[in-house]
Amino acid sequence: MRFDITSRSSFGKARAGIVYTAHGSFETPVFMPVGTHASVKAICPRDLESIGVGIVLANAYHLYLRPGHDLVKRMGGIHRFMAWPHPVLTDSGGFQVYSLADLREISEDGVAFRSHLDGSLHFIGPKESMEIQRDLGADIAMTFDECVPYPSEYDYVSRSVELTARWAERCRDFWNGSEQSLFGIVQGGMYADLREKSAADMVSLVFDGYAIGGLSVGEDMATRLDMIETTKKCLSEDKPVYLMGVGSPEDLIEASLRGVDMFDCVMPTRNARNGMLFTSKGKLSIKNLHFRDDPRPPDDECECYTCANFSRAYLRHLFLSREILAYQLNTLHNISYYMKLMSGIRNAIRQNTLDKFIEKFYERQTLLKEEFS
Amino acid sequence: MRFDITSRSSFGKARAGIVYTAHGSFETPVFMPVGTHASVKAICPRDLESIGVGIVLANAYHLYLRPGHDLVKRMGGIHRFMAWPHPVLTDSGGFQVYSLADLREISEDGVAFRSHLDGSLHFIGPKESMEIQRDLGADIAMTFDECVPYPSEYDYVSRSVELTARWAERCRDFWNGSEQSLFGIVQGGMYADLREKSAADMVSLVFDGYAIGGLSVGEDMATRLDMIETTKKCLSEDKPVYLMGVGSPEDLIEASLRGVDMFDCVMPTRNARNGMLFTSKGKLSIKNLHFRDDPRPPDDECECYTCANFSRAYLRHLFLSREILAYQLNTLHNISYYMKLMSGIRNAIRQNTLDKFIEKFYERQTLLKEEFS
Repeated sequence: MRFDITSRSSFGKARAGIVYTAHGSFETPVFMPVGTHASVKAICPRDLESIGVGIVLANAYHLYLRPGHDLVKRMGGIHRFMAWPHPVLTDSGGFQVYSLADLREISEDGVAFRSHLDGSLHFIGPKESMEIQRDLGADIAMTFDECVPYPSEYDYVSRSVELTARWAERCRDFWNGSEQSLFGIVQGGMYADLREKSAADMVSLVFDGYAIGGLSVGEDMATRLDMIETTKKCLSEDKPVYLMGVGSPEDLIEASLRGVDMFDCVMPTRNARNGMLFTSKGKLSIKNLHFRDDPRPPDDECECYTCANFSRAYLRHLFLSREILAYQLNTLHNISYYMKLMSGIRNAIRQNTLDKFIEKFYERQTLLKEEFS
Repeated sequence: MRFDITSRSSFGKARAGIVYTAHGSFETPVFMPVGTHASVKAICPRDLESIGVGIVLANAYHLYLRPGHDLVKRMGGIHRFMAWPHPVLTDSGGFQVYSLADLREISEDGVAFRSHLDGSLHFIGPKESMEIQRDLGADIAMTFDECVPYPSEYDYVSRSVELTARWAERCRDFWNGSEQSLFGIVQGGMYADLREKSAADMVSLVFDGYAIGGLSVGEDMATRLDMIETTKKCLSEDKPVYLMGVGSPEDLIEASLRGVDMFDCVMPTRNARNGMLFTSKGKLSIKNLHFRDDPRPPDDECECYTCANFSRAYLRHLFLSREILAYQLNTLHNISYYMKLMSGIRNAIRQNTLDKFIEKFYERQTLLKEEFS
């Protein structure tokens, strides 16, 4: 893996670049749609390609449980399995073990847990996570980390940061290298000194990139940005930085401004399935009675297939009728919105107009609301 | 509307032709995917176009209840509403009033019923059906008919056939003509003489085409084909004949052979959502454990996006994970299969090789089953 920084913004610490992997390159800052079960929900790979998606994320935890990483390997690996020949990143399973599984028991070797699907007993630690991710064959693998709840006591987070460092080292040792890159994950809760310690731990282990984990867990925006800044300044300047699971449009802008290069979040896809559409004038709930007779597209500045062909009235009808097409069209639009936002951020960095881009973004966020008040 | 018969098979009564409407033409025999709520479930219009769909069906009953035919009209009509600029046929609501609604009360003017959605009271008769279909603006509208259950007593069916004829006449009188064509529906249960009477009634009223209704309601294949033959021979030779709601691959072949020109059925789309895929070697249930490790496409003779890119193993995984993409990919494949089947039938009629086409079709229907036994 290679990371070339091609532009830096004089406003903030934002940078634009390109990451090269065995399955092609992608431009940063990048947003990675989430394909939990080796499918970005309600959208097919050719549509992802057509709207400019450069890399998708899949989850080791889910694919380990179903259909099994060994099956994915036998079917030719994750790229072939999901018919996505472009870059893929797999999460290590750390986060899901904590957020989804039951009856966790943590030991030095990893976590024993019960499947959220059928209650069966499983064990994933650094070794197992690396094996799973190796079989899946993503371009970028993540270290196995402990994710602490929010809020957590200082002492607990402190011990957890040390365990996460030992696990990261074991991941690095079990990692086979070859074409798969490995990113270390920084934890540390909302404690600046623990974030700094965790970042230093990861940097000393030397990874291909570094991730900021454990955010967007209930903290306010100011705290989150504080933790991002604190962590970022401790990381190697020439490696990509990935902010995990954080991804409202505002998050993407503020974190890009602070030098983050990669993002993933279920927000565009999950919100699409809940009828919430992102537009250049703010968010839109398609269920709203306002849109019953509205012949306009969701976003008249968007050129996606949904906006080019369908009215708010039709999308509202599909959503209320629980038609699968509602999820398809909403998802296509929301990911398109995210792709356009990220390409806007990248262009603004290259042209050194990020301050104006951000100002305009915030100015326009309430336009839709004002229309209806 | 114009119907040109361009070829006739010397085997059976099959014919191939072209129907010209205000929104373009389609070749017959044709299969119309069902878009109940103005959406063919789990597939977008551009994908329907790309796999050769020439005309889709929508339901007056459903669209009357939600979002309302008046809304569809205000949004520019059904074509604009669903972003399908090609031909559309709307069913009259007759069948749905009987199969879905509660507390029906039939009078000379129509049927009072309660909505299957919220129990609200409604009334649809010939006049209302024509108004609804006029507002929807489909290229082909259907007369409002009474659909009798199966089995039904001769006397009841006989009275029903008379009511259906009176309703058909009132539909014709309420019909505005213009660019919308109107098809009369033949009923008569499984009684040959009532079918003949109903067909004669419709022919004497002179419609743009004729439909055979009330089949695939529980009768066996022999009875169904008997009723199709009986009805067909009483209909005008130069008008398109539409067999309503009947559509297994075998039905399409046998009815095409007997001179039917148009078909609709939820089978390809509904079965797709239940994990049943049609293939050139017979049906395939994607849930089956057989396919767990199967890297082959559903149908190696199919060129659809699904078969070109995805394995049975992946589709099984998607289906068991209840991923929306499962419904999308299965639907795309099944409609592609139906389109290929119909174009095969049309080509065989044109080349006068329908007998061989049918022989080969039946020979190959068990190949997949034999593979696994």
